[in-house]
Amino acid sequence: MTTGAADSIAILGGTGDQGLGLALRFARAGRAVVIGSRKEDRALAAADEVRNAVAGANVIGLENAEAAARAGIVILSVPFEHTAPTLKSLKDVLVPGQIVVSMGVPLATAIGDGAARTLGVWQGSCAELVASLVPDAVSVVSAFQNVASHRLQDLAHDVECDVIVSGAKAPRERVMELCRLIPGMRGIDGGPLANARFVEGWTALLIGLNVRYKVPSGMGFRLTHLPGAGTA
Amino acid sequence: MTTGAADSIAILGGTGDQGLGLALRFARAGRAVVIGSRKEDRALAAADEVRNAVAGANVIGLENAEAAARAGIVILSVPFEHTAPTLKSLKDVLVPGQIVVSMGVPLATAIGDGAARTLGVWQGSCAELVASLVPDAVSVVSAFQNVASHRLQDLAHDVECDVIVSGAKAPRERVMELCRLIPGMRGIDGGPLANARFVEGWTALLIGLNVRYKVPSGMGFRLTHLPGAGTA
Repeated sequence: MTTGAADSIAILGGTGDQGLGLALRFARAGRAVVIGSRKEDRALAAADEVRNAVAGANVIGLENAEAAARAGIVILSVPFEHTAPTLKSLKDVLVPGQIVVSMGVPLATAIGDGAARTLGVWQGSCAELVASLVPDAVSVVSAFQNVASHRLQDLAHDVECDVIVSGAKAPRERVMELCRLIPGMRGIDGGPLANARFVEGWTALLIGLNVRYKVPSGMGFRLTHLPGAGTA
Repeated sequence: MTTGAADSIAILGGTGDQGLGLALRFARAGRAVVIGSRKEDRALAAADEVRNAVAGANVIGLENAEAAARAGIVILSVPFEHTAPTLKSLKDVLVPGQIVVSMGVPLATAIGDGAARTLGVWQGSCAELVASLVPDAVSVVSAFQNVASHRLQDLAHDVECDVIVSGAKAPRERVMELCRLIPGMRGIDGGPLANARFVEGWTALLIGLNVRYKVPSGMGFRLTHLPGAGTA
C-alpha cells in the first residue's frame, strides 16, 4: 500500500452502478476515493463522472490492482463470477492491515439463471470465498449488498436503508463507520463473517421483490426496535 | 375437515410463545382459533389464556391432529425438529384445499448448536420440507417466521414488523390477508415457496442481532420504498 493511502477507499468495479454509487457517496462525504476497473480508461471516465456530480471530489481512476494498492479499505464491487479472478490478480498487491469489503451476492445470473436465485458457494458465502482468497492478515468484512444503486446515486435523497456489516470486530467497526458517511444508511453489527450468507440470500430476495413490486429504483429495509437508533 | 371450519385458523404448537402470540392476535381480530398441542391439556390451558386476554375470544384447544381437522388454514408453529414428525401424524387428517403455513426455521438448536445458525435442509428450506410431507392438493405457504413472540403477545402495541409470504398465488394471497388482521404487520408478496430459504436465514440473522443488541423482545424489519404502503 502506498504511503498516506490508509484513509483512502478503493472501489474495485467502481464503474458499475452500485460501485459508482458508493464512490459518489464517499466522495461527497469528503473521503479520498480510488475507482478501480479492469480497464484504466473506464476507471478514469467514472472518476470524471464523480467529479462532475460532486464539487471538489477527491477521486482518481486506476486499473484494479493499482487502485487496491492505494487504499486502506478495498471494496469489491464486481459481479460474483469476477470475484475469484479479481482477487487472484491482487495476490501480490494486498498487504497486512488492509480491509477488503465483500459486497457480492452469488446470484444465479453467473450461470445464466435468474437474479432472484442464488448459487451455493463452497465456502458458505461470497464473503467467505473472498476471505479464502486474500493473503494472511488482510481482513474481510461483508457489507453494502442490499443497498440499491439508484438510491446510492441519487445524491438528493437519503438512501433510507440499513445494511448488515459482518466480520471480525475491529475491521467490522471501521466499515460501520463508513456507513455513517452515507445519509440514511445505518450499518448494523452483523457479527461474524459467516453471517454474510444470510445477508446475501436476503439481497437476492429483495431483488425478486423489486421485480414483483415493480420498483426498479430498489427497496431497502429498516430494522424496527433497534436500540438507540436514529435514522442516521 | 369438519363442516363450517373453513374460516377457522388452527395453530399447531399454539402453546409455544410465537404460536400463542398468533392465537391472541387472530382471536382479537374476531377469527375462530383452534390451538393444537401434542397434549390436549396444554392446548386447553393455552385456550384459557387467550380467553383471559381477549374478551369474547372464539378459541378452543385440541390435540394437534384434531385441531388440524377443524380449520381451513393450519399454521405449524413447532420447533424445527418436530416438523416432520408432526406432519407425519397429520397424514390422514389434511384434505385437499387446506393451507398449511410453515413458520419454522431450521435453527441449529435442533442439534444442540446455536440459534443464530441454521442447518442445511435437503429440500432447500423448512417450508419445502413441509411441502414434501403434505398430501396432494394441500397448499403450503411460508410466513410469520421473523415476527417476535413478544411483539405478538403485547396486544397493547402494533407489531411494527413486515413478514414475507411465499407460496403459490391463491393460498399466498389468503395468508397475506391474515397478516392484515394483525395491527402493524404487513404481509409482503415473497413469490414462490422456494424463497422461504432466504426468509428462514434472515430470521436466524435477526435472532443473532437480538442477542448482539440485547433486545430480548425482538427486532423486526420494514421494507422501505414499498409501493402504496401504509403501515397497516
